[in-house]
Order: sequence, then structure tokens, then C-alpha cells
Amino acid sequence: MTPPINVAVLGATGRMGAEAVRAVESAPDMELVAALGRSDPLESLLDARATHVVDLTVPDSTEANVRFAVRHGLHAVVGTTGWTDRRRAELGELLAGHPETGVLIAPNFALGSVLASAFAARAAKYFESVEIIELHHPDKVDAPSGTAVRTAELIARARAEAGVPAGPDATETSLEGARGADVDGVRVHSVRLRGLVAHQEVLFGGAGEQLTLRHDSFDRASFMPGVLLGLRTVGVRPGLTYGLDGYLDLGR
Amino acid sequence: MTPPINVAVLGATGRMGAEAVRAVESAPDMELVAALGRSDPLESLLDARATHVVDLTVPDSTEANVRFAVRHGLHAVVGTTGWTDRRRAELGELLAGHPETGVLIAPNFALGSVLASAFAARAAKYFESVEIIELHHPDKVDAPSGTAVRTAELIARARAEAGVPAGPDATETSLEGARGADVDGVRVHSVRLRGLVAHQEVLFGGAGEQLTLRHDSFDRASFMPGVLLGLRTVGVRPGLTYGLDGYLDLGR
Amino acid sequence: MTPPINVAVLGATGRMGAEAVRAVESAPDMELVAALGRSDPLESLLDARATHVVDLTVPDSTEANVRFAVRHGLHAVVGTTGWTDRRRAELGELLAGHPETGVLIAPNFALGSVLASAFAARAAKYFESVEIIELHHPDKVDAPSGTAVRTAELIARARAEAGVPAGPDATETSLEGARGADVDGVRVHSVRLRGLVAHQEVLFGGAGEQLTLRHDSFDRASFMPGVLLGLRTVGVRPGLTYGLDGYLDLGR
Amino acid sequence: MTPPINVAVLGATGRMGAEAVRAVESAPDMELVAALGRSDPLESLLDARATHVVDLTVPDSTEANVRFAVRHGLHAVVGTTGWTDRRRAELGELLAGHPETGVLIAPNFALGSVLASAFAARAAKYFESVEIIELHHPDKVDAPSGTAVRTAELIARARAEAGVPAGPDATETSLEGARGADVDGVRVHSVRLRGLVAHQEVLFGGAGEQLTLRHDSFDRASFMPGVLLGLRTVGVRPGLTYGLDGYLDLGR
Repeated sequence: MTPPINVAVLGATGRMGAEAVRAVESAPDMELVAALGRSDPLESLLDARATHVVDLTVPDSTEANVRFAVRHGLHAVVGTTGWTDRRRAELGELLAGHPETGVLIAPNFALGSVLASAFAARAAKYFESVEIIELHHPDKVDAPSGTAVRTAELIARARAEAGVPAGPDATETSLEGARGADVDGVRVHSVRLRGLVAHQEVLFGGAGEQLTLRHDSFDRASFMPGVLLGLRTVGVRPGLTYGLDGYLDLGR
Repeated sequence: MTPPINVAVLGATGRMGAEAVRAVESAPDMELVAALGRSDPLESLLDARATHVVDLTVPDSTEANVRFAVRHGLHAVVGTTGWTDRRRAELGELLAGHPETGVLIAPNFALGSVLASAFAARAAKYFESVEIIELHHPDKVDAPSGTAVRTAELIARARAEAGVPAGPDATETSLEGARGADVDGVRVHSVRLRGLVAHQEVLFGGAGEQLTLRHDSFDRASFMPGVLLGLRTVGVRPGLTYGLDGYLDLGR
Repeated sequence: MTPPINVAVLGATGRMGAEAVRAVESAPDMELVAALGRSDPLESLLDARATHVVDLTVPDSTEANVRFAVRHGLHAVVGTTGWTDRRRAELGELLAGHPETGVLIAPNFALGSVLASAFAARAAKYFESVEIIELHHPDKVDAPSGTAVRTAELIARARAEAGVPAGPDATETSLEGARGADVDGVRVHSVRLRGLVAHQEVLFGGAGEQLTLRHDSFDRASFMPGVLLGLRTVGVRPGLTYGLDGYLDLGR
Repeated sequence: MTPPINVAVLGATGRMGAEAVRAVESAPDMELVAALGRSDPLESLLDARATHVVDLTVPDSTEANVRFAVRHGLHAVVGTTGWTDRRRAELGELLAGHPETGVLIAPNFALGSVLASAFAARAAKYFESVEIIELHHPDKVDAPSGTAVRTAELIARARAEAGVPAGPDATETSLEGARGADVDGVRVHSVRLRGLVAHQEVLFGGAGEQLTLRHDSFDRASFMPGVLLGLRTVGVRPGLTYGLDGYLDLGR
């Protein structure tokens, strides 16, 4: 029988971290060997004989955490934001000296959301028209959502590469804002509604047909299957992977 | 057995008129006694012994047609646009002298659409949040659709009468247009997609729940059940009725 | 200024009761004067000078609770199940002797769900076809949901009263179960999916169009606006009201 | 400039064939060189110097048509049903002797539908739960639709290969049919509604999230972009391809 994966959770006292602690404890093929809060020393990872770490801390400390893990040969799954291009490049250099160690940095762990974005990029060139509707709770401060903007950019790039022209639009008279925001030529509409959590629809239209890719996030628990998938895969994928889609089996 | 309703279609050579001809011919309780095109004289309505007329002509001729019908005691179901407040007021005066004659002027004959608007107005005061998404083919020249604007106005009026405040919205940073058009405080989003016909969603949100009223128009045929319902009802509803909802049984 | 409504919550230690305690505490026009658990004596309602009670207990105790309230002139809003026809009839007799006291017994407090059912009953006779899809978490033990069965019964009754025939269905060969369950002639489909809470769609179809009424319950919090509406209304609606729709303003 | 593709349509007098004639005539990179009805001799394909044929005939004649085309080096795009395993195997043998000739046999030409099926197969192993809802006009004689059955089979196979267990379902008491048909362990629900054309939803559920893949076919026109894509690709894909997804770019 395969021995369990020895996992340490960093940021275990935060909301996401607490979810991760529960998820790892419930996974039959994992053992939770450490759950560190803000003031716990990183050395305790070594005492606990962790082989994998999950970093769900804050932008200020994630870089030091992950570099510590890599230097000690621990694989890392990272959900903290703040990983700029420069930080990722420097981490890549460090990883070059540790050729057996893997790191996954994922802006989004919800499998359904990651799959929907990947499918949207693949479908993009096959339809005349495409628009995005994202729907969130009304306490959200930005519109459109970051996920919707990234999805629009992926779609726009795929269409540009395939030489697909902008979608048809005969609008002559319009109330301001009716046709949504323009993200690289893709219209994005942001709905804010009490009761909702986080939802997104990508609508593709062609002659006589429509294809809709919809993702609903009802709960923070939606991130945990992606975290566990990351932990199960990172040990056999040395180097730096950016985005959970890099671990998904989407090819033929 | 009740004798059939003797129906004349005006504008029978147009697309809507041709549909109406087919619908009347198929209705077991109606007889098509005349189908008039642009150049046929209105007097032929009398020769044909029509008791009801359907006017699906053009804004320039609908007023003369309907006034002719009323003066001869024929009930009229009218789908032509162009009936301004003034025209309707003048028609009301004419009808005062013909107390047994009924006229229905309906901007929309699709039962589902009329019901969705009526339900939206009734639900409006019970939810913190409400937004509208309308989706149409990309050859449409105006955004939002007229139906969406009217629905938003109905909702806004119902909320104002009940003293419901504007929906919550914490947006601080937004791409221009992302939050849609503002119609009397109700956000309206217009999607244009090849393959679609005419579709509308009214989304209501409250703590922990969402109510969605969606209508899809796939085909011009969707207007015909409303036209037939109008013909069956107009004879027992003397005077002027504006809007098919006036004939629907929506009360308790 | 109107004095606040003095509310006592019965069953305050249950999950629904605890939500109700929070909701009453947050309502600007209410004061929580008592929150009783299983072993607290009902007399404490009188000591606390409650004028309204919310009963969210269990079928075994709800009848005694409500009858106690009525005998002391307290208005009651009841969400507990177990109110059979006989129990309701006996409560009606008791209320006849307390002509100023009101009781609301509501099988469902989610405003959106109650509205969707009411709208579905009103729309039922205007469409050739109607089917229901209900979607729930996979731990639910019954299929279809009670709400879906009641909605189907309301629809079937409305269609029968209007003389609308069964929906068209040319199916000749079918896998067992594909066409759903038959509830008084209305097809009902039950989906069970991890991640969902409680959702229902009523689909109406006519020539060239579709009307969809969808309700999503994401959270137990969805019942609280209905509880508060009940508390605000029960004092001016003496006698027994069964179903929250009796308090909603759905007429013209 | 690339010379146009010389296309002949077989079955040009049928409904699909007539659509194909229009589509080829409108395509800037194609020339319609022949449009054959039932009684036209196949030799006229040669006289017309066709290089590609579209077969939209009937099961009885499609095999002879395609074999004629292959023997004369014409590439063929085939939408006719009736291509059993045996017929396809025999065609494969014939093609072995014509190594530069390509044939595409596609049970479905709607790009959105083909993409939705392909995406569903890829997503299948990442979610605990999956069910399918297909919705069609009420004149359809079989339930579930062939497309829904094929999609369920693809999903079931992908889950079996990945060792994913059956979706959770705690149902204890159920009305007959409520939980749909069981296709290889995947529940499939068939809705029949006047006004609809052909629609399908694949619903995936995991902890706290849902992924929905929906396809709507509003019109026979939805098949034409797939037919044109087939014509543009078949000439550079020698041998037999079964299913339009074989021509789509779905990999990384």
C-alpha cells in the first residue's frame, strides 16, 4: 500500500486554511502532520516530517514560505495571491537547483471554474459571437470579476490567433452601459444580487445554436477538491506549474 | 353550439398577418371571412360579415382601420405599433359612442412574455435586489430592448410604491459598462448573440435565495395564442383595453 | 413612532430557531423578548410580555404551543410541520373564540419559492405544455421534493378547472424513468447533485415560446424574510391563515 | 489565391440538403458545382468536376454514394444515418486503396453540441455527481434522445477508466420515474415541451460548486457551420474519420 502523503498546512487559522485542514484530515491517502499559524516557526515543518505543504497565508509571507519549502525539498501547493511575474521567475530559478521538487501556484482551485475557463478558450474560435455574464453577491467591490476578465482575455487571444473577427453587433442606439464592458473585444456583464455567491456564464452563439458554459460557486468548500488534486499531483510534476489547469487532463 | 367568430385579418400579406391567417384558419371556433392586403377596401369587411378584425398593418393605416371597425360595431384586436397616448384617448372617445364594442391594443402578444412582466411587477417589492438580462440576435439596433425597458419601469414603480430602497451594490472600481444600463434604478444588461431570437431574464435576489423569471421567444408563432385569446375575449370586454395582461386571469 | 413588535421564539436552540433569533434581533421594528428552548415553560412568554410568537419546534409540541399562545391572545407564526387537516380545524375552532388573534401556519417561508408556486398556478392554463425539474443535494431521501409535488398539484388543478388537456407527448419508445414521475398528469424530474442545496424550475411551453420560473434556495437564511413578513402581518389578519401566499399581495 | 473547393450536394432536394446548398453557395471559399436529387445519376458528379461531396441522402443510398465518391477520388462529408460498424469497416478497407481520399461521417454537425459532448467527457472524472437533462419538442418519439444517450455513455466510460464511483444518491422513497433513466449509471431526464427544438444540459456537481454545459439547437441552420468545417478539412485528413470532434482542435 502506498504510504500517505504527509501534509503541512500553512495559514491554518485562516478561513481557507481551516477548510484545508479539514479536507486533508478527511482524505484517506493523506496525513496532516502540521497546521501552522502566523507565529509558528517554519522549522516545525521539518520536525513534523512533512513532505508536502499547502500555503494559504498572505501575500507578505507566501514567498518566504515557499522558498523555505523548496530549499528543503518539500513540494508546495500555493493558493495565496501576490505571485507577480518577477516572484515566479525567481522561484523558477530556485527550483532549477532542486530538480525533484514541484510547486503549483493556482489563482483558482475550483475545478469547475478552471475547467470552464479551459473549455471556453477551446470553444472560442468556433462561434461567431461570445459574451460573458458574471453574477456575484452585492458586497463585491470590483466589476467585472477577475475571473471574468481572465476568461475574456483567454477567449480574445484564442480568437485572435485563429483570425476570428469581432462578434456581430448592429446596435445603433443604446443606453449607456447596456452592452456591458469591453474586455479585448469580448462583452462582459456584471450582475450584483443579494443571495448569490460567485457565478459565471460564457455564452457562445452561432447560426441556429448556442453553447453555454456555466459555473456556480456556492461555498468555499469548492476549492478543496482542487487543493487535494494539487497535493496528489505536485510530487510527480517537478518545477513550477502556474494554474491548476496544468494538472488537468484536458487533451485527447 | 356556439357559432364561430367571423374574423377578418387586415395586413394579411405581411409576415405577422400571414401567421394570423393560418392561426385563425386552424382555430376550431373561428372562421376566416376576409384577409385584406394593403390595397383592399375596408368596405369588404362588411360584405364578408366580419364581426371581429385583427389589425396587423402599419402605423400609418392602423388608426383609420380601427376607427372604421368601431364605427361599424366590429370588435378589434390590434398588434400594430404607433398607438400614442393621444391616439388612444381619441379612440376611447369614439368607443364611448359604441358601448358594446371592444378594442384590444397589445404591444406584445406572447403570453409568456406578458405573464413574465406581470409576475415581475408583483414580485418586485419582496426582494432586496433585482436586475434584468435581455438577450437577442445581433441584428437588433437598439439596446436594451423595449420590453426590457418596460419591465424595468414596472418593477421600479412597484418598488417605489412599496418604499423599497435601491438594491445594494458595493462596486467601487468598475470597467465602463460592466454594471449595465440604469433604467429607473434597475440595472439592465443587453446580450447580442448570433443564433438567438428574443429572450429575457428577470433576476430577483434576497438573503439566501434567487427567483428567476425567464421568457424565450423562438418564433413569430409565439404571438398567435395571444391573438386568438384576444379574439375570444374582446367581444365581451367593451371599451378600450391596452395590454394583453388586461385579459389575463392573474388575480386570486 | 410605532412601538416595536415583542417577539418570542420557540425552539430557539434548533437551527431554524437560532436563525430566527438572529433575524428578529436585526429587525429594526421588532424586539426579541424571549427565546425558549425545549424545557423552558410557556408561562415565561407572559412574563416577557410577548405579543407575537414564532414556533419553530417539533411536530409533537407545536400544537400545544400554538393553542397556549392563542388562549393568551398572542399572535403566532408557525413553521413547524405536522399540522394535519384535523389539527388545523380544531385550531380554527379555538380561534373563533379569540376573534382578534391571528395565526399563520406556513409550510414554506422562502418568499421566492412561495411566489414561484403562486405564479406557476396562475400561468398553468395558458400553455400547452408544463413540466417541473427539481434539483437537490444528494442526501435528500425523497424524490420528488414535497414542494415539487405541491406545485404540480396546484398546476394540475388550475389546468383541470380551465379545461386544458394534458400536454402533448409523442413518446413511443422510452427508457424506464426518462420521462419523469407523473403527478396528476404533470411530469416531474428529480436531479440529485453534490454541491446543490434546493432548486426548482417550472417550464411552460407554447407555440414558439417558453416561460421558466426558477427558484434557488442557497441557505436557510432564505426563510427569514418570510418569517419577518409573517410577524409584521399576523397581527392584522385575525383567524387562521394557511400558507404564506395568503399574506402576499399578488392580485391586480 | 487558393482556388475554391468544388462541392456537390447529394440529397439536395431534402430539407437538410437544401440548407447545405444555400450554405455552400454563401461560402466565399466554395463553389457549388452540382446539386443532385434522388434520380440524378452519380456520373454527373464527374461531369461537374466536383472534388468534394456532401451526402445528405437516406440510409438506403448513402453507402453506394460514398463508395462511388471514394473510387473516383472525391472527398466526402456524410451526414446520413445508417453507417453501422460493418459498413464503416468495409468503407475503411476501400479507403485503404485510395490513400489520398478522406471521408468524414458525422452523426452530429452542430459544433456546439459536439463541443459540449467532448467537454463533458473531459470533465466527467473531476466531479462526484453528474446528470443529464435533455429537452425537446413534444413530437419526438424516443426518450432519451440519441445524443443524450451517447453523452451519458462517454461520461460513464471516462469515469470508469478513472475509477470514479457512482454519484451519491440517498433516495429512499421515490415516485416511479422521478430519478430519470439510468444509462450506464448516469441519470438522464427527458423533458418534452411545445415550443422547444433540441436542448441538452450536462450538470456536474462537487463540494460547493456546479458546472453546467448547455447546448441549444434552435434551427437546422446550426448544422451548416459544421458541414462547412468538414468540407474545409476532409481534403487534408485522408482515411475515415467518425465524428466531427475528430476535426476539432480540443487539445492543449
